[in-house]
Amino acid sequence: MKRESRLVRWIWWTVVVTALFLLGFCIGWFAKRSKVPANNHKTSSKYLLEFLDEMRSDLIRDHLRKFTRLPHLAGTEQNLKYAEEIMKEWQDFGLDSVELVPYDILLSYPNKSQPNYISVVDHNGKEVFNTSLAEPVPHGYEDVGNIVPPYSAYSPKGHPEGDLVYVNYGRTEDFFQLEREMNISVTGKIVIVRYGKIFRGNKVKNAMSAGAKGVIMFSDPADYWAAGVKPYPDGWNLPGGGAQRGNVLNLNGAGDPLTPGYPAKEYTYRLNPEEGVGLPKIPVHPIGFHDAIHLLKNMGGQIPPNNWKGALNVSYKTGPGFTEDFKSQKVRMNIYSNNQVTRIYNVIGKIRGALEPDRYVILGGHRDAWVFGGIDPMSGAAVVHETVRGAGRLLKKGWRPRRTVIFASWDAEEFGLLGSTEWAEDNARLLQERAVAYINADSAIEGMYTLRVDCTPSLHTLVYDLTKQISSPEEGEEGVSLYESWHKRDNWTNDRDAPRISKLGSGSDFEAYFIRLGIAAGRARYTKNKKTERYSSYPVYHSVYETFEIVEKFYDPTFRRLRAVAQVRGGLIFLLADSQVLPLNANEYADSLRKYADSIARLAQTHTELMETHNVSFESLFSAVENFTNAAKGFHERLQTLNIEDPLQVRIINDQLMYLERAFIDPLGLPGRPFYRHVIFAPSSHNKYAGESFPGIYDALFDIENSADPEKAWREVKRQISIAAFTVHAAAMTLTPPA
Amino acid sequence: MKRESRLVRWIWWTVVVTALFLLGFCIGWFAKRSKVPANNHKTSSKYLLEFLDEMRSDLIRDHLRKFTRLPHLAGTEQNLKYAEEIMKEWQDFGLDSVELVPYDILLSYPNKSQPNYISVVDHNGKEVFNTSLAEPVPHGYEDVGNIVPPYSAYSPKGHPEGDLVYVNYGRTEDFFQLEREMNISVTGKIVIVRYGKIFRGNKVKNAMSAGAKGVIMFSDPADYWAAGVKPYPDGWNLPGGGAQRGNVLNLNGAGDPLTPGYPAKEYTYRLNPEEGVGLPKIPVHPIGFHDAIHLLKNMGGQIPPNNWKGALNVSYKTGPGFTEDFKSQKVRMNIYSNNQVTRIYNVIGKIRGALEPDRYVILGGHRDAWVFGGIDPMSGAAVVHETVRGAGRLLKKGWRPRRTVIFASWDAEEFGLLGSTEWAEDNARLLQERAVAYINADSAIEGMYTLRVDCTPSLHTLVYDLTKQISSPEEGEEGVSLYESWHKRDNWTNDRDAPRISKLGSGSDFEAYFIRLGIAAGRARYTKNKKTERYSSYPVYHSVYETFEIVEKFYDPTFRRLRAVAQVRGGLIFLLADSQVLPLNANEYADSLRKYADSIARLAQTHTELMETHNVSFESLFSAVENFTNAAKGFHERLQTLNIEDPLQVRIINDQLMYLERAFIDPLGLPGRPFYRHVIFAPSSHNKYAGESFPGIYDALFDIENSADPEKAWREVKRQISIAAFTVHAAAMTLTPPA
Repeated sequence: MKRESRLVRWIWWTVVVTALFLLGFCIGWFAKRSKVPANNHKTSSKYLLEFLDEMRSDLIRDHLRKFTRLPHLAGTEQNLKYAEEIMKEWQDFGLDSVELVPYDILLSYPNKSQPNYISVVDHNGKEVFNTSLAEPVPHGYEDVGNIVPPYSAYSPKGHPEGDLVYVNYGRTEDFFQLEREMNISVTGKIVIVRYGKIFRGNKVKNAMSAGAKGVIMFSDPADYWAAGVKPYPDGWNLPGGGAQRGNVLNLNGAGDPLTPGYPAKEYTYRLNPEEGVGLPKIPVHPIGFHDAIHLLKNMGGQIPPNNWKGALNVSYKTGPGFTEDFKSQKVRMNIYSNNQVTRIYNVIGKIRGALEPDRYVILGGHRDAWVFGGIDPMSGAAVVHETVRGAGRLLKKGWRPRRTVIFASWDAEEFGLLGSTEWAEDNARLLQERAVAYINADSAIEGMYTLRVDCTPSLHTLVYDLTKQISSPEEGEEGVSLYESWHKRDNWTNDRDAPRISKLGSGSDFEAYFIRLGIAAGRARYTKNKKTERYSSYPVYHSVYETFEIVEKFYDPTFRRLRAVAQVRGGLIFLLADSQVLPLNANEYADSLRKYADSIARLAQTHTELMETHNVSFESLFSAVENFTNAAKGFHERLQTLNIEDPLQVRIINDQLMYLERAFIDPLGLPGRPFYRHVIFAPSSHNKYAGESFPGIYDALFDIENSADPEKAWREVKRQISIAAFTVHAAAMTLTPPA
Repeated sequence: MKRESRLVRWIWWTVVVTALFLLGFCIGWFAKRSKVPANNHKTSSKYLLEFLDEMRSDLIRDHLRKFTRLPHLAGTEQNLKYAEEIMKEWQDFGLDSVELVPYDILLSYPNKSQPNYISVVDHNGKEVFNTSLAEPVPHGYEDVGNIVPPYSAYSPKGHPEGDLVYVNYGRTEDFFQLEREMNISVTGKIVIVRYGKIFRGNKVKNAMSAGAKGVIMFSDPADYWAAGVKPYPDGWNLPGGGAQRGNVLNLNGAGDPLTPGYPAKEYTYRLNPEEGVGLPKIPVHPIGFHDAIHLLKNMGGQIPPNNWKGALNVSYKTGPGFTEDFKSQKVRMNIYSNNQVTRIYNVIGKIRGALEPDRYVILGGHRDAWVFGGIDPMSGAAVVHETVRGAGRLLKKGWRPRRTVIFASWDAEEFGLLGSTEWAEDNARLLQERAVAYINADSAIEGMYTLRVDCTPSLHTLVYDLTKQISSPEEGEEGVSLYESWHKRDNWTNDRDAPRISKLGSGSDFEAYFIRLGIAAGRARYTKNKKTERYSSYPVYHSVYETFEIVEKFYDPTFRRLRAVAQVRGGLIFLLADSQVLPLNANEYADSLRKYADSIARLAQTHTELMETHNVSFESLFSAVENFTNAAKGFHERLQTLNIEDPLQVRIINDQLMYLERAFIDPLGLPGRPFYRHVIFAPSSHNKYAGESFPGIYDALFDIENSADPEKAWREVKRQISIAAFTVHAAAMTLTPPA
């Protein structure tokens, strides 16, 4: 019995011990989590809301006020000072590192002792009228020095004199109309065109191709006046003495004209100045409409067709001097600007990623301004500044994003996207392997109506998801999301019931990242109502009237619109940097590819017979799009079953998402544009601002009915269709299981 | 007391329970391993030895026997049959997937009904001598059909007739000597050159540039005879009736001449045949030395300088017909070959990686042969076959590599590396993002002396480590490692006390992977003693005498040399695919860069005065190399402290190692050679077979003393130094901590 009892006790003991051990073992086993990323969706979304809440209108106002007091043109001391201040403040906000990154690039300035102007000269060569040398300075800024007068950056020096020919907006089609329908040649003449519709560099290129010996550009009220709005300072319209500065390069993404393809470091080889990429060969100058009227009167008999008549045409058409009277008078341009290699400074700030420091999410926007930059770019720079401050606050609360975030204050954007392009060239290897996305932050506001987003298709759903979590900044829309507010104002007609999102064009710093390197990119700003407000960009664009006050008085008195833009830009960065699985959507890319393929095929169908003659078919492209669509669908289905506990599996899937955009890059580039390498998107060859889809095919088809060698021209169309089809197939491959 | 005792007991219980729980917890905690890669170094090294042991000489012999019975030229039915057999066997060996991947590329064949030949014609135009139409077929192969006679692939059709000029090896310097020192022009004449020293395509290019209207190439015993060795079948020297087939393209890495840059799929746009890349414009034909003697007799008075005199020169110099006698006779080429778009087939087999299926390690070699391919390429293909079999055996034992392994049997290598290049173009996006390394497997043996390895610098240490674990195949070297055996025979003089490893040139399938895509690459084979055996490649190269028997009788009777090569190639693949941390070494790259920089600077120093005049300095390059050296050192120091338990940290480090080679790629390519994009290595512009370091600078300096525009020429040197310096800096950046 005793023995038995002992045995029982012993058994009991054993059972208890074993049970306890097992209990401990199990708890120990499960208590130890597999290495799962620290920030999963839940903590992220908590921090996201904190981050969005952190952005303050009053501080955005303060940032804008602070950085718009003085002119800060690229390459000037003041722009370096602002760079240093921004660096200092980003450090204080709590970024892990901030540095100034200099490059020595070709800039262009007017000659301080010999101002640029345009004259009307009589038959004795006497100047009977001269355009103004500067814009009337707005109230409160009378004592400010270093306001650069309106000029066309990179215009060569020169004094061409001749008849003036008006060519509307100076678009390709305008020159075609002039030459083919009106039978007017501009060879040896000076061309005058109105600003608007297309990038000014394209106007100059067209004029050069047509043989002009000079280009004058003016702001026509038809394009730079909103109805019922007074000129600044009483309203936000462009005064008659205001004119648009701007570069007139045709860089096609080359960056610094003297160091195409490579960063402009001290040791870098530089082309001879005359070999520089994209430099105009004829003098160019911009004027306001008060001056323009005088020149237009001197047009020597050219009667503009009705569809060319802007607001100014009315005046000169009815004015006393139009047609024959001034025929014997000519126009003379007097341009003394200089190109010079100058040091610029990007500010680069970083938050090191907690788990994937080698994955980069970039928020970049420029700092340099033509004068004060009240809208362009400081409304955007103020937003970035507030985003950095907000991110710094989160860091102090213990948050750290999964991936590295890079903030950039670019220099010399106004001179051809130079600061951002040089940095992209400098860091091309790192960006190519490691960049997840680039969000651009130029002007945050160009109107008072609603949100505007241009981005790569894979970002569509993220933009929608995010804007549903942001409040509308509009008066009387409390409780309404930004998404709803935007949707109501700008629905994507026909295609889908959602707010419209457009393709990226160019004309801002995302270009090298998106079009050259193939990094998913997007931009967001507040905009006008395109249906009712037909003027280009915004009236005071690139004039001295872009002040702090124009934003505070007219565009965003409560600074809530800018705050909403900060939340969109910042929220995108946040989610791209911190989501465990990258919030990129390949199905959206498939849908867009289908749309673009339909559209380019439809364009080609205007030549049905020729297509048959030359045996041109879009079948291979449609078949590739089909293949891509299936691959994307399969990818997202597999994503549903992803084991998010397995860090390598997550990384592999994320790499597929990250490299999807890269897959559309063709290292050989587009014909004649080696730095535009994205097969799906490029700036239009006829307007840098606009995005063209399947640009290779589009350009091959352009004006093909007038081709001198149709056989060769149609062969090029076939070649481009083949390249597009291959590229879409290749991108599809990246979405299939990796082995 | 009772209470106390209860308390004590209770305490005891608590202590025991807690202790047991903690014990259990701890054991549970530690029993659950963090997600560590399944194959760490230890298990890997166990499997490595099993893998090396698995390779069997007798089976390599069997594979070689099996695939050399019939001629299997690219594009022929027999080569497809072999492809299908290989596919079937790879499947049986146990690969996860094997597929045939077809492309439709431009090939070139002699016209079966009109054979190519060369005649000596008398002054009446009568053919007084014709070269042979085929090589005497070796014993045992008399009944074999489809032996293609010697021809120069891609020679255009044509019947040029004219005087013959002998230009030694047809090298750039030979033409310089002819034109500049001997004052002989080849314009309108037919050039005869001996094979050897440089790639035959370069000879043809040089002849074309010099204005020749045809090229004849012959094998001179001075270059294709080993001393004291009998002609095949009694020895391994080239019989007098043997001649070297081969393509005479100058593709510069373009792949299929009609689809440069894109894979030659059914839908792919093709250039017009006359626009094809790299096609020779003048007829070309190869002959053996029995025929050559007859033509050389007809040279019309050209006395070759002493350093041009090969073995044949002795004969014709002393023969009766030399100099004036035959002056009135001319040579006529009769070439009827056709270029035609033909389907080829790569065989692609895969082992899916266990942990990183999206990381690719590639072992590729070609299958197509000019005739039987006893050495080229089947000695290599047999080795690959055995490697696949060995890997399959390991798979069955439960091993699975960390990364994906891809085995490739390329087609149409002999026609310009076409199969491998098309596949690289097809998969460029995947390879760019995912390929760790490419190991090439062309002919495994070209001599009986020792190992020969050409590879990228980062593979040096891996090659040394591996060969220390492989046994010497040499008779009487039992217990001696391959490393020791190799070291003894070919020490890296001056530089270091280790076996010599050379740079990669081109002329085999690694080209697109290494030079275009920037994937770390290497090749290994058994070679001759370069110090004593001065002949080019091996005597029967590209002749009908490349049989199974020549290997079995002479090159490797025990097949142990081929086994050693299999172990090297297979071992490299194994370690690259299965090591947790990639066995690539950045310090070795730093050392090589220093060596190359020294060497190119030394070359430039031959123009010290001009360098001063034109303000040329290598300082920026040396400074970049210094920077790279420090970055590499820092990287490997940090690698020591890597937490290998953290799968993301390991992946990040491995990505840096993988992308190091990629960092040397310049998307803009080398001047005039857009598909050669590696800034450190390219095939020499004067000899495709040879590798040139800093090729951009080298080519800019080449013959600069004779430049027509020295200012421009030296500016190009400066530009190239700048590009090299930038690229080395950029590569250094990839080795620094990622954020």
